[in-house]
Amino acid sequence: MHANETISLKDLSAQVIGIFTKAGFSPLQAQSLARVIVAGERDGCKSHGIYRIEGCLRTLRAGKVNPVAVPALHVDDSAIVRVDAQGGFANAAFDTGLEALEAQTARFGLAALVITDCTHFSALWPEVEALAARGMAGLAMCPSYATVAPYGGTQALLGTNPIAFGWPRPGQHPYVFDFATSVAARGEVELHRIAGKPLPDGWAMDAQGQPTTSPEAALAGAMLPFGGHKGSAISTMVELLAAAMIGDLTSPEALEFLGTTTLAPRHGELILAFNPQRFAAGRQTDPFARAEILLQAITGQGARLPSQRRYAARDIAIKTGVTLSADERAQLARLEAQGLDGIS
Amino acid sequence: MHANETISLKDLSAQVIGIFTKAGFSPLQAQSLARVIVAGERDGCKSHGIYRIEGCLRTLRAGKVNPVAVPALHVDDSAIVRVDAQGGFANAAFDTGLEALEAQTARFGLAALVITDCTHFSALWPEVEALAARGMAGLAMCPSYATVAPYGGTQALLGTNPIAFGWPRPGQHPYVFDFATSVAARGEVELHRIAGKPLPDGWAMDAQGQPTTSPEAALAGAMLPFGGHKGSAISTMVELLAAAMIGDLTSPEALEFLGTTTLAPRHGELILAFNPQRFAAGRQTDPFARAEILLQAITGQGARLPSQRRYAARDIAIKTGVTLSADERAQLARLEAQGLDGIS
Repeated sequence: MHANETISLKDLSAQVIGIFTKAGFSPLQAQSLARVIVAGERDGCKSHGIYRIEGCLRTLRAGKVNPVAVPALHVDDSAIVRVDAQGGFANAAFDTGLEALEAQTARFGLAALVITDCTHFSALWPEVEALAARGMAGLAMCPSYATVAPYGGTQALLGTNPIAFGWPRPGQHPYVFDFATSVAARGEVELHRIAGKPLPDGWAMDAQGQPTTSPEAALAGAMLPFGGHKGSAISTMVELLAAAMIGDLTSPEALEFLGTTTLAPRHGELILAFNPQRFAAGRQTDPFARAEILLQAITGQGARLPSQRRYAARDIAIKTGVTLSADERAQLARLEAQGLDGIS
Repeated sequence: MHANETISLKDLSAQVIGIFTKAGFSPLQAQSLARVIVAGERDGCKSHGIYRIEGCLRTLRAGKVNPVAVPALHVDDSAIVRVDAQGGFANAAFDTGLEALEAQTARFGLAALVITDCTHFSALWPEVEALAARGMAGLAMCPSYATVAPYGGTQALLGTNPIAFGWPRPGQHPYVFDFATSVAARGEVELHRIAGKPLPDGWAMDAQGQPTTSPEAALAGAMLPFGGHKGSAISTMVELLAAAMIGDLTSPEALEFLGTTTLAPRHGELILAFNPQRFAAGRQTDPFARAEILLQAITGQGARLPSQRRYAARDIAIKTGVTLSADERAQLARLEAQGLDGIS
């Protein structure tokens, strides 16, 4: 029997890389996947931790992701850095484009990383954090698949369309937010279904476009955008910029392509990067020092900054490792031994 | 006595330009102001129409705006176009930078217009619409002055921090949204106060940080961000990108500088511009045609796109002019004859 156990981040990373490698992923793909999954566990984000491994493997088993894709980087004289993910996961594509994005952002003041033809499952905060670690502010967004009704509508059309933003804070964790533009993430509706609990009001509508608190009816119907018409407008912007504009699939197109919401969707991603020093040039102020005054005024009145809980978990995990349950340990051991045959 | 009267957009524009010129504004400043104010009337946005003239004049009388400012354009080899508004209104600064922004966006694929040292009172949709008319997608944002508490906080710190987005739709009005990141605009709280009506729940807190439906208590306390912690995070992003990053005032700094919320605030503005063809290059899809499929699916299920009401009013006003009340006509005549002395 497996008991609860604390494992170092290094050992967990090696185990997760081993699982993906055994399943057929290339070292590049396996390492990029492991990095974000271990980061999820480290930060106490169980919903983006090792729980996600089976989803990645199921997507592979269904033939919906290329496990040995070599992302193709294209840089020119513009401020647009392009990475064709070649059907692999977005994470390796992001890692492939990061240095070029940094170089173009330093050169032009701002630049965009456009990832196309990727399969996507991960949170966006690892990416804006990677930018912040290199001194850049970043704004990342992507569609998903059609599960959210536009404000005033009755049918699922938009994705949960996450947006994430990062701002570097020298000497400490960056200011980072990352959230779905739906009122709740789809996984939260799933958790209510599994627990047999009704949804809060205002989360979802049924297949007839009527408000519902039934998780089953919501999953057959549509979720609602956060913040009413404003959140709906932002979600639509994500479809326009991070799908139509970059020539990749919108959320309804991604759902049609995939035919299911149970596998990771294929689409693109847009990441905007800003070099604050370039923007502040000539203004005789330090943009980071100015930002600190504002951020400290927020925490000074007792409000929490986004990601503070994640960072607290991280600070502990880096010192002591992460604790996995018996079930989690068993799952990892099974996948390590059996590869795709170990999927539960 | 003045009766209700319909006036052509051209005649209204001439009259508004005359009022600003008489008050001491340069032709450049007067024309830029008149353009957005007449656009507000034209689109049925009374809150950004001729109602705003007196606020502009009061700001001038208080010595808080330079009426003859000549915005200084600075373009270099980066993707950042800078306009120093020299203490004038933002509108002339935007007009000064628009061509250079278009050129840099065509050159680099994306570019930013940074306006600094401007006085600001207007909606942002005229600006993203101007970009859309030139084929660009645009995202505009600016701080205001500290009237909104961060989520989980108790004190006004953030501004109402509007964000606006525009996407060109060839042959028809663009997709445009423009809204405050507070749950309501400050003017709406004022309107409740004047009408003696309580505020809806969830709009505001009093000076002690307790929820309130009293407009007076709200104006002495703080408004709330839209969409809970998500809207609060977006509003904070606006402070970081469109204030700290560009080396201009945050909302608390703008309030401290001005000392009142009754005049137009001094701060900066950030506008991001995207060339969709450059982004879609090599993808063998038309980004505008792809966007139409999505937008038509939204309206096809009975949901309204943002700005549809404005466009409907515009289509009528362009043909028939706008109707002004007796009071509005009297106000315009008084300001035309008496300049700053005509302020009520």
